[in-house]
Amino acid sequence: MTQKLHLEDLKIGDVFKSDAYAITTEEIKAFAEHYDPQPFHLDEEAARDTFFQGLAASGWHICAITMRLFVGSVPIAGGIIGAGSDVSWPQPTRPGDVLHVESTILDITPSKSKPDRGIVTIQSDTFNQRGERCQRAVSKVLAFVRSQG
Amino acid sequence: MTQKLHLEDLKIGDVFKSDAYAITTEEIKAFAEHYDPQPFHLDEEAARDTFFQGLAASGWHICAITMRLFVGSVPIAGGIIGAGSDVSWPQPTRPGDVLHVESTILDITPSKSKPDRGIVTIQSDTFNQRGERCQRAVSKVLAFVRSQG
Repeated sequence: MTQKLHLEDLKIGDVFKSDAYAITTEEIKAFAEHYDPQPFHLDEEAARDTFFQGLAASGWHICAITMRLFVGSVPIAGGIIGAGSDVSWPQPTRPGDVLHVESTILDITPSKSKPDRGIVTIQSDTFNQRGERCQRAVSKVLAFVRSQG
Repeated sequence: MTQKLHLEDLKIGDVFKSDAYAITTEEIKAFAEHYDPQPFHLDEEAARDTFFQGLAASGWHICAITMRLFVGSVPIAGGIIGAGSDVSWPQPTRPGDVLHVESTILDITPSKSKPDRGIVTIQSDTFNQRGERCQRAVSKVLAFVRSQG
C-alpha cells in the first residue's frame, strides 16, 4: 500500500484499480447459506430452472468482495467509512469468475459544518475476467484533511 | 412461510416485518476479516481511536443480514431477485445489537416489454433493539405474474 490519502490529495477523475479475486462455488454457497438462502445461490440443480439459469452469487456477496478489493486499492487515511452506496447488478457473477474493481472519484464535497472532513463520491465498477461489468456501486465515503501542526 | 406472492398480489403500502437477528462480536470480526478488513471492524482496542469509537459492523455485513431477514419475511414467488439497491447507514451497528427489518412497498411498475413481470420498489429499514435505524435500503426487485392456465 502506498501513502495514505487525505481529502486534499484526492481529485475528481482519479482512478484506483484493485487486485483480482477469484470466486468459487464453495464461497458462493457458504455466503448464501448464511445470508441469502435462495435456491439460485445454493444449488446448481435447483438454480437451473430459475431466472438465473444456473448458480449465481448473491449480489450482497459481490458487494462484500468489492469492499475487500476497494479497501485494498483505495488508501484513504483513517480507512473507508461509508455513509451509503447506490448499487446495481447488471449481470450475474458465476462460480470461477475472477473479479476486479475500478474506482473513480466522481465528486468531492468539503463539509460546511466540519472543516476537517469532506464527502467523496466514488464509483466502483466490478468487472469479471471477460471485462463484463457485474456490479456498479456509487458510494459516499468520508475523507479527512491532513492534521495541521 | 405463507403463500408465495405474485406481482398482482402486491400493493403499494404493504408492510412486511422480519424476525430478529442478534449480531455477535465474533460474527462482526469474521465477516470483516474476509470482506472488510479495517481496524474499526476487527479489534475493540484499535477501534477505540477511530471515527466509530468502538467496534462496529461493516455496512456490507448489515446488508447481508438484512437480506437474510428480507428473504425470510417477504415471500415473493420465484425468490428475491434484485436489480439494485440504494443503501445508507445512518448509524453504526454494535456487538450484541438485535436487528429486525421492516419492508414497505413503495412502487410497482409492470414491465412494458415483458408482460409476465414487473419491478417492485421496496424500502427495507433495519432497526436495532432500541428502535434506532441502522440501515435504509431502497431496492428494486423482480416479481412475476401468476402463470395462466
